[in-house]
Amino acid sequence: MPYSYENLFAFAENVFLKIGCSEEDARLATTVLLSADLRGIDSHGIARLSGYVRLWEAERVNARPKIKIVHETPSTAVVDGDKGLGLVVAPFAMQVAIDKAKNCGTGWVSVRNSNHYGIAAFHAMMALEQDMIGISMTNASALVAPTFSKERMLGTNPICVAIPAGNQPPFVADFATTTAANGKLEILQRKGEPMPEGWGQTGDGGNTRNANILKEGGALLPLGSDRVHSSHKGYALGSIVDIFSAVLSGASYGPWAPPFPAYIPMPENMPGEGLGHFFGAMRIDAFRPAEEFRQHMDRWIDRFRNAERIDEAQPVLVPGDLSVLLKRNAERGVFLW
Amino acid sequence: MPYSYENLFAFAENVFLKIGCSEEDARLATTVLLSADLRGIDSHGIARLSGYVRLWEAERVNARPKIKIVHETPSTAVVDGDKGLGLVVAPFAMQVAIDKAKNCGTGWVSVRNSNHYGIAAFHAMMALEQDMIGISMTNASALVAPTFSKERMLGTNPICVAIPAGNQPPFVADFATTTAANGKLEILQRKGEPMPEGWGQTGDGGNTRNANILKEGGALLPLGSDRVHSSHKGYALGSIVDIFSAVLSGASYGPWAPPFPAYIPMPENMPGEGLGHFFGAMRIDAFRPAEEFRQHMDRWIDRFRNAERIDEAQPVLVPGDLSVLLKRNAERGVFLW
Repeated sequence: MPYSYENLFAFAENVFLKIGCSEEDARLATTVLLSADLRGIDSHGIARLSGYVRLWEAERVNARPKIKIVHETPSTAVVDGDKGLGLVVAPFAMQVAIDKAKNCGTGWVSVRNSNHYGIAAFHAMMALEQDMIGISMTNASALVAPTFSKERMLGTNPICVAIPAGNQPPFVADFATTTAANGKLEILQRKGEPMPEGWGQTGDGGNTRNANILKEGGALLPLGSDRVHSSHKGYALGSIVDIFSAVLSGASYGPWAPPFPAYIPMPENMPGEGLGHFFGAMRIDAFRPAEEFRQHMDRWIDRFRNAERIDEAQPVLVPGDLSVLLKRNAERGVFLW
Repeated sequence: MPYSYENLFAFAENVFLKIGCSEEDARLATTVLLSADLRGIDSHGIARLSGYVRLWEAERVNARPKIKIVHETPSTAVVDGDKGLGLVVAPFAMQVAIDKAKNCGTGWVSVRNSNHYGIAAFHAMMALEQDMIGISMTNASALVAPTFSKERMLGTNPICVAIPAGNQPPFVADFATTTAANGKLEILQRKGEPMPEGWGQTGDGGNTRNANILKEGGALLPLGSDRVHSSHKGYALGSIVDIFSAVLSGASYGPWAPPFPAYIPMPENMPGEGLGHFFGAMRIDAFRPAEEFRQHMDRWIDRFRNAERIDEAQPVLVPGDLSVLLKRNAERGVFLW
């Protein structure tokens, strides 16, 4: 039975109110949460609601946080989330980045003491309507083994970069720095199907196609999958996200990142407070006139979308086409990300 | 017969002087060029010297450029390289980023009308001695096919992020956004060996292990190799580098990026001037006290280096270990990047 957006919104908003959020925060948290479902990233939307409630029950989430700037310069800030929902802390911090960009061209904000922030794209895309490029990243529970290691050391640590265009829809790249996001394994688990090789490894570091491998001591693999296909690059990307989000802000990093599932005990000897995020906003006209830039982005997007196809039936896509083409192409069976 | 650093330096410096560079520029260009050989990235060092000379012969390089800032805000600038050697334009632009960071926390510089800039790491690492994080990226001749395409649309578009530590050597990640850099194919060509699957594709978009495939109309593959292993993420990364470096600055982008080999004709209808780069500098103490950050980076690096190994003989590495371990481990036969 399908639910309407309005039904799901009222339901989730009510849950956030019940755990003690202010009306404003409940509305914002719900908007951010459901933006994942609207973009087709079901793993990060309403499906996660119970997870946030469990974190609140475990007293790892503060429903009435005093979010504040603890340090700043004209183009930077560190924000302390006071254990608030990442869904609320992240838009606050991204707004700080946008305000700084208005004043001095760019704004960069590192966040500590936060929690899971939903999809990276929501926050980065806040910059688009201001004629700015938006950047968003976050560290997360350790599930990923570095190249040559069998230990889970990094989260799937996503990066989003959102870039405004003119007549074209914006360029929005939002991706985990692993070969496959955890949500893709969950889909295969529900279907009882194996996963492709190169997505994960066993607890001993061996190859596997078992989609349940994370429950059996295994790990996800960095983008690149193995050394021969440059998994060290995915490992480096995930590390950069971890350092910008957590070492720069004073959040907990690497294998000490607080786990999203509330039943997993918190790591010992945590080197910082809570989860970390990193946001950036760059005013287009801090580089060149916005109108000129938009025209060139349209030309860029148009040229890439018209790149020669391998298979005539499968168009070449531009990051962000998902949200535009999702509905139009799903019934035609065209493969999208 | 091995050459000493001093011999190679004198040779290259003399070549740059002969094509008309000032003494200062010849010294700088040589220093940047040879930093590649010192870091073990032989493909980008002295081996490229003749390529730069060919570009000068073809009048695509101006040996006496008037490099200037054409637009700026407190935290940003656009630099016009006046067709200068990238080896000279890039350090100028990175210095602008560093100076802006001194004043307002961070500095971000997009560059147009430049040429090949050597290794990304040289420029990013200029930030380290200032207690700053350095970022460097560049677009390049189109050799890479986007996911679902058989057309060369992007360069190997590298990214470098350099992060200072305390007692540990700095974290320096410097990588092409493809599965394999072109230099790796060149090594296999010289040996007459095939390449692994997933590095490149034929002109029709088919699988191949032919290391000469670029000479036969084929293309390199984005990091991730194929759709199942998330080549769309490598394609997105390469695109972000292209847009930040070239669309933001007014350089030529995508398939219109000027080719490095001087015998390849310039593309028609170029949408901008020359090659583009993008640089960033972030002052550590714009976020938290530098000493505190350095201590946490040491803990981060130490923890990752001590992550559980799959093979006891193969240590887990941290980006940048190459330059430190290269000499020490090469004779022991340990695999490095």
